[in-house]
Amino acid sequence: MTGVNGDAGASVDMLEVLKAASGAVEGEMERLVPASEALHGRIHDAMRYALFAGGKRLRPFLVSQSAKLFAVEPSRALRVGAAIECLHTYSLVHDDLPCMDDDDLRRGRPTTHRAFDEATAVLAGDALLTVAFEILAAEPTHPDPGVRCRLVEELAKAAGRDGMIGGQMVDMLAAQRAFGADEIVLLQQMKTGALFEFCCTAGAILGQARPDEVTRLRTYARDIGLIFQITDDLLDVLSTADKAGKAVGKDAAAGKATLVSLWGVDAARTKATELADHAIELLRPYGTTAAELVALPKFLLARES
Amino acid sequence: MTGVNGDAGASVDMLEVLKAASGAVEGEMERLVPASEALHGRIHDAMRYALFAGGKRLRPFLVSQSAKLFAVEPSRALRVGAAIECLHTYSLVHDDLPCMDDDDLRRGRPTTHRAFDEATAVLAGDALLTVAFEILAAEPTHPDPGVRCRLVEELAKAAGRDGMIGGQMVDMLAAQRAFGADEIVLLQQMKTGALFEFCCTAGAILGQARPDEVTRLRTYARDIGLIFQITDDLLDVLSTADKAGKAVGKDAAAGKATLVSLWGVDAARTKATELADHAIELLRPYGTTAAELVALPKFLLARES
Repeated sequence: MTGVNGDAGASVDMLEVLKAASGAVEGEMERLVPASEALHGRIHDAMRYALFAGGKRLRPFLVSQSAKLFAVEPSRALRVGAAIECLHTYSLVHDDLPCMDDDDLRRGRPTTHRAFDEATAVLAGDALLTVAFEILAAEPTHPDPGVRCRLVEELAKAAGRDGMIGGQMVDMLAAQRAFGADEIVLLQQMKTGALFEFCCTAGAILGQARPDEVTRLRTYARDIGLIFQITDDLLDVLSTADKAGKAVGKDAAAGKATLVSLWGVDAARTKATELADHAIELLRPYGTTAAELVALPKFLLARES
Repeated sequence: MTGVNGDAGASVDMLEVLKAASGAVEGEMERLVPASEALHGRIHDAMRYALFAGGKRLRPFLVSQSAKLFAVEPSRALRVGAAIECLHTYSLVHDDLPCMDDDDLRRGRPTTHRAFDEATAVLAGDALLTVAFEILAAEPTHPDPGVRCRLVEELAKAAGRDGMIGGQMVDMLAAQRAFGADEIVLLQQMKTGALFEFCCTAGAILGQARPDEVTRLRTYARDIGLIFQITDDLLDVLSTADKAGKAVGKDAAAGKATLVSLWGVDAARTKATELADHAIELLRPYGTTAAELVALPKFLLARES
């Protein structure tokens, strides 16, 4: 199944590609979220502390690569990528708070509320969420304000009460009773999948692509999101904190069911491989322009952090 | 000074006007933030608990009244009013958190984190902030997407790192050292003034008014914002918890300087009266269409809660 399409991504060095994409979006983030000497500069410091903490920058990569399929000017995709990274970072800052996951470490260094304080972390998260919409709505993101409004609306839906935040809420409930596989897939779809969908469809929206192409990219994003979740769960079970750069074994300790705990390691890995084949098949119409997006699922399957 | 213009607002029963405006915007909020039977319905419940807690709905009133000056279709102003009320409510929910002001009561009933839990309050605040932008960006807010983008961008700036959130940050620092009057005015301008400005200019933006009219409404909003802050500080000093519906004497207890503590009660009241005269003068060109906006500053000067 993956033969022909797999070839499109065969020569891609994903680490190099991600590194280049990461450097580009970090430059954009640097311009959009600069430090400040103002009386309230501490809020900028906390935002930047959380933003510039490394990370794979997978979401901006998805925006830029999906935008490439529709010949979108790269600077526009970079702005959307920076916005999504601000939003993703806000979710991490708030998730790490003592009243949520109570994490002391993130990517090997103190979480924002540990490095600053809880109140500053709450505010920095709020400001990162807010600036994401400011970036999307501003003129340089796209000359057509209809495109910008659509991006704002889609991101708000993906990140909001019936998307990422709703998923967080369900995740809290998951600790209280045993979830089945369907509920866990729904949870994942809301908590992380909706944002992946936004990233992949953003490229199509920026390129003012046909609705069926938006749908195709959305389906690809669903596959990728689920692969990401399964491989994350596998890491939680199989990796060491040293390799993963964060605490592992947390789901089991919290008594939370995951797809891996329900299906077992081997079946979960098989499912992820099937999803990868499906994702790659979806990109066939785009040929080698989609090389990086084709290479991504296999890269995720092999990841160690 | 206030003779002629004051007359424009002389026959306005502000309590009645605010009550009608409040009923209209609450109907809109009810439609835009409905309850949900979904697995994650608890997030909707918490959002609604925070949203439908009474309150004067002063900000939606400012949007609707400023929109009236430019003959904007009322349903559009109501949507913007509902969005701003979602955003204002998020700021209250997060401000009340234990790591921020640690308030147990808001408008005479348990704060959101007391009625639910801290994590749910953080998430509900995040969701209220997010839905504000979703509402503004959606087509029914205005047929011209350029107008909608401008509203999103202006609200994000008013509410963000260099606006309301920056003001919150400065407020935290204010507990650590004595602020002068200039710093307190700057703090107020960021913390509450920027959102008042958004409300009053939103009407002009919806009406695609000339830049000088946007500026006029912005100046009116600055006056109103400062009057609101001074009268709030006066209430904190002079009122009882029973009348105010919340804890009073908190600024003094926290050792925070306010304009009232720096200037004294009488000078603060005089300053507020001067600001009211100035605000009313600004509305002269709009005649009786501005009756409610003309009546507002005097209403604020007389308020007891």
